[in-house]
Amino acid sequence: MRIAVDAMGGDYAPQQAVLGSVLAAKEEGIASVLVGRSEEISRELKQYQDYPQDLITIKDAREVVEFTDNPAMAVRKKRDSSIVVANQLVKTGEADAVISAGNTGAAMTASLFILGRIPGISRPAIAIPLPTVKGVTVLLDAGANAENDPEDLVQFAVMGTIYATSVLGLASAKVGLLNIGEEETKGNKLSLEAHQLLKTSGLDFIGNVEGKDILMGVADVVVCDGFVGNVILKFAEGMAAALFQKMKEALLQSPVTKLGALAIKPGLKKLKASFDYAEYGGAPLLGVNGVSIISHGRSDAKAFKNAIKAAANGVKQDIIAKIRSSLV
Amino acid sequence: MRIAVDAMGGDYAPQQAVLGSVLAAKEEGIASVLVGRSEEISRELKQYQDYPQDLITIKDAREVVEFTDNPAMAVRKKRDSSIVVANQLVKTGEADAVISAGNTGAAMTASLFILGRIPGISRPAIAIPLPTVKGVTVLLDAGANAENDPEDLVQFAVMGTIYATSVLGLASAKVGLLNIGEEETKGNKLSLEAHQLLKTSGLDFIGNVEGKDILMGVADVVVCDGFVGNVILKFAEGMAAALFQKMKEALLQSPVTKLGALAIKPGLKKLKASFDYAEYGGAPLLGVNGVSIISHGRSDAKAFKNAIKAAANGVKQDIIAKIRSSLV
Repeated sequence: MRIAVDAMGGDYAPQQAVLGSVLAAKEEGIASVLVGRSEEISRELKQYQDYPQDLITIKDAREVVEFTDNPAMAVRKKRDSSIVVANQLVKTGEADAVISAGNTGAAMTASLFILGRIPGISRPAIAIPLPTVKGVTVLLDAGANAENDPEDLVQFAVMGTIYATSVLGLASAKVGLLNIGEEETKGNKLSLEAHQLLKTSGLDFIGNVEGKDILMGVADVVVCDGFVGNVILKFAEGMAAALFQKMKEALLQSPVTKLGALAIKPGLKKLKASFDYAEYGGAPLLGVNGVSIISHGRSDAKAFKNAIKAAANGVKQDIIAKIRSSLV
Repeated sequence: MRIAVDAMGGDYAPQQAVLGSVLAAKEEGIASVLVGRSEEISRELKQYQDYPQDLITIKDAREVVEFTDNPAMAVRKKRDSSIVVANQLVKTGEADAVISAGNTGAAMTASLFILGRIPGISRPAIAIPLPTVKGVTVLLDAGANAENDPEDLVQFAVMGTIYATSVLGLASAKVGLLNIGEEETKGNKLSLEAHQLLKTSGLDFIGNVEGKDILMGVADVVVCDGFVGNVILKFAEGMAAALFQKMKEALLQSPVTKLGALAIKPGLKKLKASFDYAEYGGAPLLGVNGVSIISHGRSDAKAFKNAIKAAANGVKQDIIAKIRSSLV
C-alpha cells in the first residue's frame, strides 16, 4: 500500500507535507509517494535520515493549484499539478489513496473528475469527524454540495455509518438527522422528507437531532445538506478561535490570573488539542471511487501524518467496496 | 410605558420573572405588568419591599402553556393562558411590549396571531444578538421560519439593520449574507438569489460571510434562513456547554491545575458571562406589529430584567414605526 500525498498543498507546503510523510513512515510504517516539484521535495527530504527510506518515493509534478484558483478551471487546465497527478496515481493503481491540504474545491473536484463516483452514489460528501464530550461524531456533508435532496441524505447516512464503524472503529453507529426540532413533523421540506426515508432505511436511525446535540455526542453520524454542514463546520472553527482569544484576554487580566494561567496551561493545551483538526488529519470525501482525504489548509506535519494514517485505514478496511456493496 | 411579562413562562417561573420585574423597576425605573396566576405572583412579589410599587401591576390569567404543548394548538385553545393574555395586553394598548420565556413556538405564534404582521412583512424573524470578539452581531432568522425565500432575507436585513442601529445603538450596520464562500457565485439557490437582491437593496451590504466570520464580528447583521440560523444558534449553545465541560475536566486534573483554576475563576466567569444569554435578555421577534421579546427558557431574574430593558428600548426607539416606514 502506498498513499499519494499532494506535497504542494497547504499553507506550509512542502515542508509539513514532507515531514508528515516521514513521520508516517517512521512511526506507522506507512508508505507514501510525495507528489510535486521534485527538487523542492528532495531538498526538504534530505534533512531527515532516520526513517525507512524505501517507504517514501517522489513523483514529479510541475504545476501548483493556488488557493485563489477557480477549482474546476484549475483541475481542467493544470494537468501537471500535484493535486491532479496525485489523484491520477490512484486512478492508475500506482497509489491506493490520495491526500491533499490544498485548495479544498480543487481537491474535491480532482477526486470527483479523476476517480469518479462509486456507481449508484449521486453526490459524494465530505465527512468531518468532530470531537464531542463523548468521543467523536461524523458530520456529513460538510461542504461538498451546496444543495441536496432527501435521497442524498440517506446515502450520506449509509456512507457515514460505514466510515464510523469501519474506519473510526465504532461498534455501531447511531444516525441523527440534523433538524430544528425533535418531532418528525418539524423542519423544512428537505428534512421532513429525509426523515421519512431514514425511518425505513434499515440504519440505526435515532430521529432528529438539533444543533446543540452534535457536540454532546447524541449521535455517531449526523447528516445534513452541504450548505448547513459547511456553515456549522466553519462556525465551530470561528467559535473556538473567538473563545480562546477571549480566554487569553481573561487570563492575562491580573498577576493572579496570569499565575493561574501558567498552572492550567497543560490542561488548556490538552483541551485545545481535542478541538484540533490535526488530531483527525482530515475528512474523507465519501462516495468517490477511491480513498480521498481532504485536509485543512493549516495542516502541520502531525495533521499530514494522521491524514496518511486515516487514508491507510480506509484502504485497509476496504471502505470503497463496503460502500459499493451497501448500494446493491 | 408598561411591559407585559409572561410570569408563568420559563424554567424558573414565576420566581425569576417576578424578581426580574422588581429589578427592572428598581434599577431601571421601568414599569411592568406580570401576567399569570395572580395568587402565585402576589406570593412571590410579597418578598420584595424596596422597589417602586406603582411600577408593578398584576394581570390574572389562569392557564399556562407548557413546554410540551403544541404551540399553535395551545395558543388557540388556552385563551386564558399567560402567554396569550400578555400579547393581548399589547394588542389592546394596555401594555407596550411583551416578553415571554415560555414555550418558544407558542410565544412566537401568540405574537404572530394576536399582534399580526407589520403590513408588507412576509415573514417575521427572530433576531438573536450574538457576542463576538468585537462586540455584538445580530443573526436572523434564528428560527421563526423553517424555510425562506430570497425576498425574506432582504427584509431580515432591513429589520436587522434597524434593530442594530436603533436598539443596540450601533452607528451603522454592515450586513453580511451567510454563505459557504466569499464569491458571489458561491452558495445554494437561496443565497445566490438573495445576494443579487441585497446588492441593490441600498443597505450597507458587505457581501457573503462564512460561518467562521460570525463570531469574529465581521458583520453587524448576518442574515440566513430560519433553518440555518436555528441550527447555528443551538450549535453555539451546545459548543459552549461542551467546551466548558471539557475545560472543567482539564482544570480538575491535578492539585496544580486546581490551584490555577481558583486563580482564574473570576476571569473565566467573565468569559462565560460574555457568552451568556442572560446578558442580552432575549431576542426580538421582528416583523410583528408590536415589540415582542422571546427569552430563553433558562432565563433568570437578570435575563428577565435585561429583556424588559430591551423591550423598553424597542418601544422608546419606536422600532415598529421605523420598520413600517422602511417598507414604503
